[in-house]
Amino acid sequence: MKERTLERRRRLEEVLRRRQPDLTVLMENVHKPHNLSAILRTCDAVGILQAHAVNPTGGVPTFNETSGGSHKWVYLEVHPTTEAAFRHLRERGFSVYATALKEGARDYREVDYTRPTAIVLGAEKWGVSEEALALADGLIHIPMLGMVQSLNVSVAAAVILFEAQRQRLQAGLYDRPRLDPELYQKILEDWLRK
Amino acid sequence: MKERTLERRRRLEEVLRRRQPDLTVLMENVHKPHNLSAILRTCDAVGILQAHAVNPTGGVPTFNETSGGSHKWVYLEVHPTTEAAFRHLRERGFSVYATALKEGARDYREVDYTRPTAIVLGAEKWGVSEEALALADGLIHIPMLGMVQSLNVSVAAAVILFEAQRQRLQAGLYDRPRLDPELYQKILEDWLRK
Ligand SMILES: C[S@@+](CC[C@H](N)C(=O)[O-])C[C@H]1O[C@@H](n2cnc3c(N)ncnc32)[C@H](O)[C@@H]1O
Ligand SMILES: C[S@@+](CC[C@H](N)C(=O)[O-])C[C@H]1O[C@@H](n2cnc3c(N)ncnc32)[C@H](O)[C@@H]1O
Repeated sequence: MKERTLERRRRLEEVLRRRQPDLTVLMENVHKPHNLSAILRTCDAVGILQAHAVNPTGGVPTFNETSGGSHKWVYLEVHPTTEAAFRHLRERGFSVYATALKEGARDYREVDYTRPTAIVLGAEKWGVSEEALALADGLIHIPMLGMVQSLNVSVAAAVILFEAQRQRLQAGLYDRPRLDPELYQKILEDWLRK
Repeated sequence: MKERTLERRRRLEEVLRRRQPDLTVLMENVHKPHNLSAILRTCDAVGILQAHAVNPTGGVPTFNETSGGSHKWVYLEVHPTTEAAFRHLRERGFSVYATALKEGARDYREVDYTRPTAIVLGAEKWGVSEEALALADGLIHIPMLGMVQSLNVSVAAAVILFEAQRQRLQAGLYDRPRLDPELYQKILEDWLRK
Protein backbone atom coordinates (compact mmCIF):
# COMPACT_ATOMS: atom_id res chain seq x y z
CA MET A 1 0.00 0.00 0.00
CA LYS A 2 1.14 3.52 -0.70
CA GLU A 3 2.11 5.72 2.24
CA ARG A 4 -0.91 7.99 1.66
CA THR A 5 -3.30 5.06 1.72
CA LEU A 6 -1.78 3.79 4.96
CA GLU A 7 -1.95 7.26 6.48
CA ARG A 8 -5.61 7.57 5.59
CA ARG A 9 -6.41 4.15 7.03
CA ARG A 10 -4.65 5.10 10.27
CA ARG A 11 -6.71 8.29 10.49
CA LEU A 12 -9.98 6.45 9.88
CA GLU A 13 -9.12 3.84 12.51
CA GLU A 14 -8.15 6.52 15.03
CA VAL A 15 -11.57 8.15 14.62
CA LEU A 16 -13.45 4.87 14.53
CA ARG A 17 -11.84 3.77 17.81
CA ARG A 18 -13.44 6.85 19.41
CA ARG A 19 -16.93 6.35 17.96
CA GLN A 20 -19.64 6.02 20.61
CA PRO A 21 -22.37 3.63 19.55
CA ASP A 22 -24.40 4.46 22.69
CA LEU A 23 -24.79 8.22 22.23
CA THR A 24 -27.11 9.71 19.63
CA VAL A 25 -29.63 12.36 18.68
CA LEU A 26 -33.12 12.08 17.25
CA MET A 27 -33.95 15.10 15.09
CA GLU A 28 -37.70 15.43 14.96
CA ASN A 29 -38.66 17.39 11.88
CA VAL A 30 -35.56 19.59 11.92
CA HIS A 31 -35.71 20.73 8.33
CA LYS A 32 -33.31 23.60 7.60
CA PRO A 33 -30.24 22.26 5.78
CA HIS A 34 -27.85 24.49 7.72
CA ASN A 35 -29.23 23.30 11.06
CA LEU A 36 -29.16 19.62 10.08
CA SER A 37 -25.66 20.10 8.72
CA ALA A 38 -24.34 21.86 11.81
CA ILE A 39 -25.86 19.15 14.03
CA LEU A 40 -24.21 16.31 12.08
CA ARG A 41 -20.89 18.17 12.23
CA THR A 42 -21.21 18.37 16.02
CA CYS A 43 -22.19 14.68 16.13
CA ASP A 44 -18.96 13.84 14.31
CA ALA A 45 -16.91 15.93 16.76
CA VAL A 46 -18.28 14.14 19.83
CA GLY A 47 -17.95 10.72 18.22
CA ILE A 48 -21.54 9.84 17.40
CA LEU A 49 -21.63 6.82 15.10
CA GLN A 50 -25.19 7.19 13.89
CA ALA A 51 -27.82 9.91 14.20
CA HIS A 52 -31.57 9.53 13.80
CA ALA A 53 -34.25 11.65 12.20
CA VAL A 54 -37.98 11.53 11.81
CA ASN A 55 -39.66 13.70 9.26
CA PRO A 56 -43.43 13.39 9.43
CA THR A 57 -43.94 15.96 6.69
CA GLY A 58 -41.99 13.71 4.32
CA GLY A 59 -38.90 14.50 2.34
CA VAL A 60 -35.30 13.41 2.67
CA PRO A 61 -32.96 15.42 4.91
CA THR A 62 -30.62 17.65 2.90
CA PHE A 63 -27.27 19.09 3.89
CA ASN A 64 -25.20 22.04 2.79
CA GLU A 65 -21.60 23.16 3.16
CA THR A 66 -22.18 23.80 6.89
CA SER A 67 -21.78 20.05 7.40
CA GLY A 68 -18.07 20.29 6.58
CA GLY A 69 -18.45 16.85 5.00
CA SER A 70 -19.59 15.27 8.28
CA HIS A 71 -22.62 13.61 6.66
CA LYS A 72 -20.11 11.23 5.09
CA TRP A 73 -18.94 10.08 8.53
CA VAL A 74 -22.07 10.07 10.67
CA TYR A 75 -24.70 7.56 9.56
CA LEU A 76 -28.21 8.95 9.52
CA GLU A 77 -31.19 6.67 9.94
CA VAL A 78 -34.55 8.16 8.97
CA HIS A 79 -37.65 6.73 10.68
CA PRO A 80 -41.20 7.03 9.35
CA THR A 81 -42.74 8.15 12.66
CA THR A 82 -41.72 9.37 16.09
CA GLU A 83 -43.13 6.22 17.61
CA ALA A 84 -41.06 4.01 15.30
CA ALA A 85 -37.93 5.99 16.16
CA PHE A 86 -38.53 5.60 19.90
CA ARG A 87 -39.17 1.88 19.48
CA HIS A 88 -35.92 1.48 17.54
CA LEU A 89 -33.92 3.33 20.22
CA ARG A 90 -35.55 1.56 23.16
CA GLU A 91 -34.92 -1.85 21.65
CA ARG A 92 -31.24 -0.92 21.58
CA GLY A 93 -31.19 0.08 25.24
CA PHE A 94 -31.19 3.87 24.93
CA SER A 95 -32.72 6.21 27.47
CA VAL A 96 -34.42 8.92 25.46
CA TYR A 97 -34.35 12.51 26.75
CA ALA A 98 -36.46 15.14 25.02
CA THR A 99 -35.43 18.79 25.01
CA ALA A 100 -38.25 20.97 26.29
CA LEU A 101 -38.62 24.60 27.19
CA LYS A 102 -41.21 23.76 29.87
CA GLU A 103 -41.03 24.37 33.56
CA GLY A 104 -40.09 21.15 35.26
CA ALA A 105 -37.61 19.99 32.64
CA ARG A 106 -34.31 19.11 34.30
CA ASP A 107 -31.13 21.13 33.78
CA TYR A 108 -29.26 19.28 31.01
CA ARG A 109 -26.13 19.19 33.17
CA GLU A 110 -27.81 16.81 35.64
CA VAL A 111 -28.12 13.91 33.20
CA ASP A 112 -25.60 11.03 33.19
CA TYR A 113 -24.56 10.87 29.53
CA THR A 114 -22.09 8.04 30.05
CA ARG A 115 -25.05 5.65 29.88
CA PRO A 116 -26.74 4.86 26.54
CA THR A 117 -28.44 8.17 25.74
CA ALA A 118 -30.48 9.64 22.90
CA ILE A 119 -31.41 13.34 22.81
CA VAL A 120 -34.58 14.44 20.99
CA LEU A 121 -34.29 17.80 19.20
CA GLY A 122 -37.35 19.64 17.92
CA ALA A 123 -38.46 21.56 14.88
CA GLU A 124 -37.28 25.16 14.51
CA LYS A 125 -40.82 26.55 14.86
CA TRP A 126 -42.70 24.09 17.02
CA GLY A 127 -40.16 22.31 19.15
CA VAL A 128 -40.44 18.65 20.16
CA SER A 129 -43.88 17.12 19.55
CA GLU A 130 -46.32 16.36 22.36
CA GLU A 131 -46.02 12.74 21.37
CA ALA A 132 -42.24 12.68 21.87
CA LEU A 133 -42.52 14.60 25.16
CA ALA A 134 -44.96 11.98 26.41
CA LEU A 135 -42.83 9.04 25.27
CA ALA A 136 -39.53 10.38 26.64
CA ASP A 137 -37.76 9.00 29.71
CA GLY A 138 -37.07 12.53 30.84
CA LEU A 139 -37.24 16.20 29.78
CA ILE A 140 -34.16 18.40 29.77
CA HIS A 141 -33.55 22.07 29.16
CA ILE A 142 -30.63 24.47 28.87
CA PRO A 143 -30.95 27.45 31.25
CA MET A 144 -31.98 30.61 29.39
CA LEU A 145 -31.04 33.76 31.30
CA GLY A 146 -31.98 36.40 28.72
CA MET A 147 -34.98 37.81 26.88
CA VAL A 148 -35.29 35.15 24.18
CA GLN A 149 -37.02 31.89 25.12
CA SER A 150 -35.04 29.37 23.09
CA LEU A 151 -31.76 28.75 21.30
CA ASN A 152 -31.17 27.85 17.70
CA VAL A 153 -31.62 24.05 17.47
CA SER A 154 -28.08 23.31 16.28
CA VAL A 155 -26.72 25.41 19.12
CA ALA A 156 -28.85 23.57 21.69
CA ALA A 157 -27.71 20.23 20.28
CA ALA A 158 -24.06 21.24 20.63
CA VAL A 159 -24.39 22.52 24.18
CA ILE A 160 -25.85 19.20 25.30
CA LEU A 161 -23.54 17.00 23.23
CA PHE A 162 -20.37 18.71 24.47
CA GLU A 163 -21.55 18.15 28.04
CA ALA A 164 -21.87 14.49 27.03
CA GLN A 165 -18.37 14.62 25.51
CA ARG A 166 -17.01 16.12 28.74
CA GLN A 167 -18.52 13.33 30.83
CA ARG A 168 -17.37 10.63 28.42
CA LEU A 169 -13.83 12.01 28.22
CA GLN A 170 -13.71 11.96 32.01
CA ALA A 171 -15.04 8.40 32.12
CA GLY A 172 -12.42 7.23 29.61
CA LEU A 173 -15.00 6.19 27.02
CA TYR A 174 -12.89 7.52 24.15
CA ASP A 175 -9.79 5.60 25.26
CA ARG A 176 -10.73 2.15 23.96
CA PRO A 177 -12.81 0.93 21.01
CA ARG A 178 -16.52 0.88 21.85
CA LEU A 179 -17.72 -1.06 18.78
CA ASP A 180 -17.70 -4.83 18.74
CA PRO A 181 -14.98 -6.14 16.40
CA GLU A 182 -17.36 -7.31 13.70
CA LEU A 183 -19.18 -3.97 13.43
CA TYR A 184 -15.86 -2.12 13.63
CA GLN A 185 -14.56 -4.07 10.64
CA LYS A 186 -17.73 -3.55 8.63
CA ILE A 187 -17.69 0.20 9.18
CA LEU A 188 -13.98 0.50 8.51
CA GLU A 189 -14.50 -1.17 5.15
CA ASP A 190 -17.37 1.16 4.37
CA TRP A 191 -15.32 4.22 5.34
CA LEU A 192 -12.33 3.04 3.28
CA ARG A 193 -14.57 3.02 0.23
CA LYS A 194 -15.60 6.68 0.70
CA MET B 1 -49.34 52.06 34.84
CA LYS B 2 -51.28 49.25 33.30
CA GLU B 3 -50.70 45.72 34.56
CA ARG B 4 -49.14 44.72 31.22
CA THR B 5 -46.66 47.59 31.36
CA LEU B 6 -45.66 46.69 34.90
CA GLU B 7 -45.28 43.06 33.94
CA ARG B 8 -43.01 43.96 31.03
CA ARG B 9 -40.88 46.21 33.19
CA ARG B 10 -40.50 43.43 35.76
CA ARG B 11 -39.37 41.06 33.02
CA LEU B 12 -36.83 43.55 31.64
CA GLU B 13 -35.43 44.20 35.11
CA GLU B 14 -35.18 40.50 35.85
CA VAL B 15 -33.08 40.00 32.71
CA LEU B 16 -31.03 43.15 33.22
CA ARG B 17 -30.12 42.07 36.75
CA ARG B 18 -28.51 38.98 35.20
CA ARG B 19 -26.56 40.82 32.49
CA GLN B 20 -22.79 40.23 32.65
CA PRO B 21 -20.84 43.33 31.58
CA ASP B 22 -17.55 41.39 31.85
CA LEU B 23 -18.24 38.56 29.42
CA THR B 24 -18.29 39.08 25.68
CA VAL B 25 -17.40 37.84 22.21
CA LEU B 26 -15.50 39.46 19.38
CA MET B 27 -16.71 38.21 16.00
CA GLU B 28 -13.95 38.71 13.50
CA ASN B 29 -15.45 38.82 10.04
CA VAL B 30 -18.24 36.37 10.80
CA HIS B 31 -20.51 37.29 7.93
CA LYS B 32 -23.34 34.79 7.45
CA PRO B 33 -26.55 36.28 8.86
CA HIS B 34 -27.69 32.96 10.34
CA ASN B 35 -24.38 32.51 12.18
CA LEU B 36 -24.31 36.07 13.50
CA SER B 37 -27.93 35.70 14.53
CA ALA B 38 -27.43 32.39 16.31
CA ILE B 39 -24.41 33.81 18.15
CA LEU B 40 -26.32 36.87 19.40
CA ARG B 41 -29.15 34.62 20.52
CA THR B 42 -26.67 32.57 22.55
CA CYS B 43 -25.15 35.79 23.93
CA ASP B 44 -28.58 36.81 25.18
CA ALA B 45 -29.10 33.42 26.84
CA VAL B 46 -25.86 33.60 28.82
CA GLY B 47 -26.44 37.22 29.78
CA ILE B 48 -23.97 39.06 27.57
CA LEU B 49 -24.71 42.79 27.64
CA GLN B 50 -22.75 43.78 24.57
CA ALA B 51 -21.03 41.85 21.80
CA HIS B 52 -18.28 43.09 19.49
CA ALA B 53 -17.58 42.63 15.81
CA VAL B 54 -14.90 43.62 13.40
CA ASN B 55 -15.54 43.44 9.72
CA PRO B 56 -12.46 44.31 7.69
CA THR B 57 -14.23 43.65 4.41
CA GLY B 58 -16.70 46.39 5.30
CA GLY B 59 -20.46 46.15 5.51
CA VAL B 60 -22.85 46.24 8.42
CA PRO B 61 -23.72 42.95 10.19
CA THR B 62 -27.14 41.69 9.21
CA PHE B 63 -29.42 39.33 11.11
CA ASN B 64 -32.23 37.03 10.17
CA GLU B 65 -35.03 35.22 11.97
CA THR B 66 -32.45 32.89 13.59
CA SER B 67 -31.75 35.69 16.08
CA GLY B 68 -35.17 35.20 17.67
CA GLY B 69 -35.17 38.96 18.24
CA SER B 70 -31.99 38.83 20.36
CA HIS B 71 -30.30 41.63 18.40
CA LYS B 72 -32.75 43.94 20.15
CA TRP B 73 -31.37 42.90 23.55
CA VAL B 74 -27.65 42.43 23.00
CA TYR B 75 -25.79 45.59 22.03
CA LEU B 76 -23.36 45.12 19.16
CA GLU B 77 -20.36 47.38 18.80
CA VAL B 78 -18.61 47.29 15.44
CA HIS B 79 -14.91 48.16 15.35
CA PRO B 80 -13.00 49.28 12.24
CA THR B 81 -10.02 46.94 12.79
CA THR B 82 -8.98 43.96 14.88
CA GLU B 83 -6.38 46.10 16.60
CA ALA B 84 -8.96 48.74 17.55
CA ALA B 85 -11.24 46.05 18.93
CA PHE B 86 -8.46 44.56 21.07
CA ARG B 87 -7.51 48.02 22.36
CA HIS B 88 -11.13 48.71 23.29
CA LEU B 89 -11.42 45.42 25.20
CA ARG B 90 -8.03 45.68 26.93
CA GLU B 91 -8.80 49.21 28.15
CA ARG B 92 -11.87 47.75 29.81
CA GLY B 93 -9.92 45.02 31.59
CA PHE B 94 -10.82 42.02 29.46
CA SER B 95 -8.54 39.05 28.90
CA VAL B 96 -8.96 38.14 25.26
CA TYR B 97 -8.91 34.46 24.25
CA ALA B 98 -8.82 33.55 20.58
CA THR B 99 -10.31 30.31 19.32
CA ALA B 100 -7.78 28.36 17.30
CA LEU B 101 -7.64 24.93 15.76
CA LYS B 102 -3.87 24.75 16.27
CA GLU B 103 -1.88 22.33 18.35
CA GLY B 104 -1.01 23.99 21.61
CA ALA B 105 -4.30 25.81 22.09
CA ARG B 106 -5.70 25.06 25.55
CA ASP B 107 -8.84 23.02 26.10
CA TYR B 108 -11.61 25.64 26.45
CA ARG B 109 -12.73 24.02 29.71
CA GLU B 110 -9.49 25.06 31.44
CA VAL B 111 -10.15 28.80 31.24
CA ASP B 112 -11.57 30.73 34.22
CA TYR B 113 -14.54 32.54 32.69
CA THR B 114 -15.61 34.18 35.94
CA ARG B 115 -12.95 36.83 35.26
CA PRO B 116 -13.49 39.53 32.60
CA THR B 117 -13.28 37.49 29.41
CA ALA B 118 -13.69 38.11 25.68
CA ILE B 119 -13.72 35.24 23.17
CA VAL B 120 -12.57 35.87 19.59
CA LEU B 121 -14.49 33.91 16.95
CA GLY B 122 -13.26 33.62 13.38
CA ALA B 123 -14.59 33.77 9.87
CA GLU B 124 -16.43 30.72 8.51
CA LYS B 125 -13.76 30.03 5.88
CA TRP B 126 -10.49 31.35 7.33
CA GLY B 127 -10.85 31.28 11.07
CA VAL B 128 -9.32 33.88 13.41
CA SER B 129 -6.71 36.12 11.73
CA GLU B 130 -2.98 35.75 12.39
CA GLU B 131 -3.12 39.26 13.82
CA ALA B 132 -5.74 38.33 16.41
CA LEU B 133 -3.94 35.09 17.28
CA ALA B 134 -0.78 37.10 17.94
CA LEU B 135 -2.57 39.75 20.01
CA ALA B 136 -4.55 37.29 22.16
CA ASP B 137 -3.82 36.53 25.81
CA GLY B 138 -4.37 32.86 25.11
CA LEU B 139 -5.56 30.37 22.49
CA ILE B 140 -8.38 27.94 23.20
CA HIS B 141 -9.93 25.07 21.32
CA ILE B 142 -12.81 22.66 21.66
CA PRO B 143 -11.71 19.00 21.41
CA MET B 144 -12.62 17.50 18.04
CA LEU B 145 -12.81 13.71 18.16
CA GLY B 146 -14.12 13.00 14.65
CA MET B 147 -13.16 13.34 11.01
CA VAL B 148 -14.04 17.01 10.53
CA GLN B 149 -11.50 19.60 11.74
CA SER B 150 -13.78 22.38 12.95
CA LEU B 151 -17.29 23.18 14.16
CA ASN B 152 -19.74 25.67 12.76
CA VAL B 153 -18.80 29.04 14.29
CA SER B 154 -22.13 29.61 16.07
CA VAL B 155 -21.87 26.13 17.55
CA ALA B 156 -18.32 26.75 18.78
CA ALA B 157 -19.43 30.06 20.32
CA ALA B 158 -22.23 28.34 22.21
CA VAL B 159 -20.10 25.51 23.53
CA ILE B 160 -17.65 27.99 25.04
CA LEU B 161 -20.28 30.46 26.28
CA PHE B 162 -22.31 27.79 28.06
CA GLU B 163 -19.15 26.65 29.85
CA ALA B 164 -18.80 30.29 30.91
CA GLN B 165 -22.46 30.30 32.00
CA ARG B 166 -21.88 27.12 34.03
CA GLN B 167 -18.93 28.66 35.84
CA ARG B 168 -20.73 31.94 36.43
CA LEU B 169 -23.88 30.22 37.73
CA GLN B 170 -21.70 28.28 40.14
CA ALA B 171 -19.92 31.46 41.25
CA GLY B 172 -23.23 33.24 41.89
CA LEU B 173 -22.58 35.93 39.27
CA TYR B 174 -26.21 35.89 38.10
CA ASP B 175 -27.58 36.34 41.62
CA ARG B 176 -26.99 40.06 42.04
CA PRO B 177 -26.90 43.00 39.61
CA ARG B 178 -23.50 43.32 37.91
CA LEU B 179 -24.05 46.76 36.31
CA ASP B 180 -23.35 49.92 38.22
CA PRO B 181 -26.62 51.70 39.09
CA GLU B 182 -26.18 54.51 36.58
CA LEU B 183 -25.56 52.22 33.61
CA TYR B 184 -28.37 49.92 34.78
CA GLN B 185 -30.82 52.84 34.73
CA LYS B 186 -29.67 54.03 31.32
CA ILE B 187 -30.07 50.61 29.76
CA LEU B 188 -33.40 49.98 31.43
CA GLU B 189 -34.73 53.19 29.91
CA ASP B 190 -33.39 52.21 26.50
CA TRP B 191 -34.99 48.76 26.76
CA LEU B 192 -38.31 50.23 27.90
CA ARG B 193 -38.42 52.24 24.68
CA LYS B 194 -38.02 49.11 22.47
C1 LIG C 1 -36.14 27.12 18.39
S1 LIG C 1 -36.43 25.78 19.44
C2 LIG C 1 -38.22 25.55 19.37
C3 LIG C 1 -38.96 26.67 20.02
C4 LIG C 1 -40.44 26.39 20.13
N1 LIG C 1 -41.14 27.65 20.04
C5 LIG C 1 -40.79 25.70 21.44
O1 LIG C 1 -41.52 26.30 22.24
O2 LIG C 1 -40.39 24.55 21.68
C6 LIG C 1 -35.97 24.39 18.46
C7 LIG C 1 -35.36 23.27 19.26
O3 LIG C 1 -34.09 23.68 19.79
C8 LIG C 1 -33.85 23.02 21.01
N2 LIG C 1 -33.73 24.03 22.08
C9 LIG C 1 -33.75 25.37 21.92
N3 LIG C 1 -33.57 26.00 23.09
C10 LIG C 1 -33.43 25.04 24.03
C11 LIG C 1 -33.19 25.05 25.45
N4 LIG C 1 -33.08 26.17 26.13
N5 LIG C 1 -33.11 23.85 26.07
C12 LIG C 1 -33.21 22.71 25.39
N6 LIG C 1 -33.42 22.63 24.06
C13 LIG C 1 -33.52 23.78 23.38
C14 LIG C 1 -35.02 22.09 21.23
O4 LIG C 1 -34.71 20.83 20.66
C15 LIG C 1 -36.13 22.78 20.45
O5 LIG C 1 -37.14 21.87 20.08
C1 LIG D 1 -15.35 26.89 10.58
S1 LIG D 1 -14.23 27.52 11.71
C2 LIG D 1 -12.86 28.07 10.74
C3 LIG D 1 -12.10 26.96 10.13
C4 LIG D 1 -10.84 27.43 9.45
N1 LIG D 1 -10.61 26.54 8.35
C5 LIG D 1 -9.64 27.39 10.41
O1 LIG D 1 -8.72 26.62 10.16
O2 LIG D 1 -9.61 28.14 11.38
C6 LIG D 1 -14.92 29.09 12.12
C7 LIG D 1 -14.71 29.52 13.54
O3 LIG D 1 -15.44 28.66 14.42
C8 LIG D 1 -14.76 28.54 15.65
N2 LIG D 1 -14.42 27.12 15.86
C9 LIG D 1 -14.75 26.08 15.07
N3 LIG D 1 -14.30 24.93 15.58
C10 LIG D 1 -13.67 25.22 16.73
C11 LIG D 1 -13.01 24.45 17.74
N4 LIG D 1 -12.92 23.12 17.67
N5 LIG D 1 -12.48 25.11 18.79
C12 LIG D 1 -12.59 26.44 18.90
N6 LIG D 1 -13.21 27.22 17.99
C13 LIG D 1 -13.74 26.62 16.92
C14 LIG D 1 -13.55 29.43 15.57
O4 LIG D 1 -13.88 30.70 16.04
C15 LIG D 1 -13.28 29.46 14.06
O5 LIG D 1 -12.54 30.59 13.68
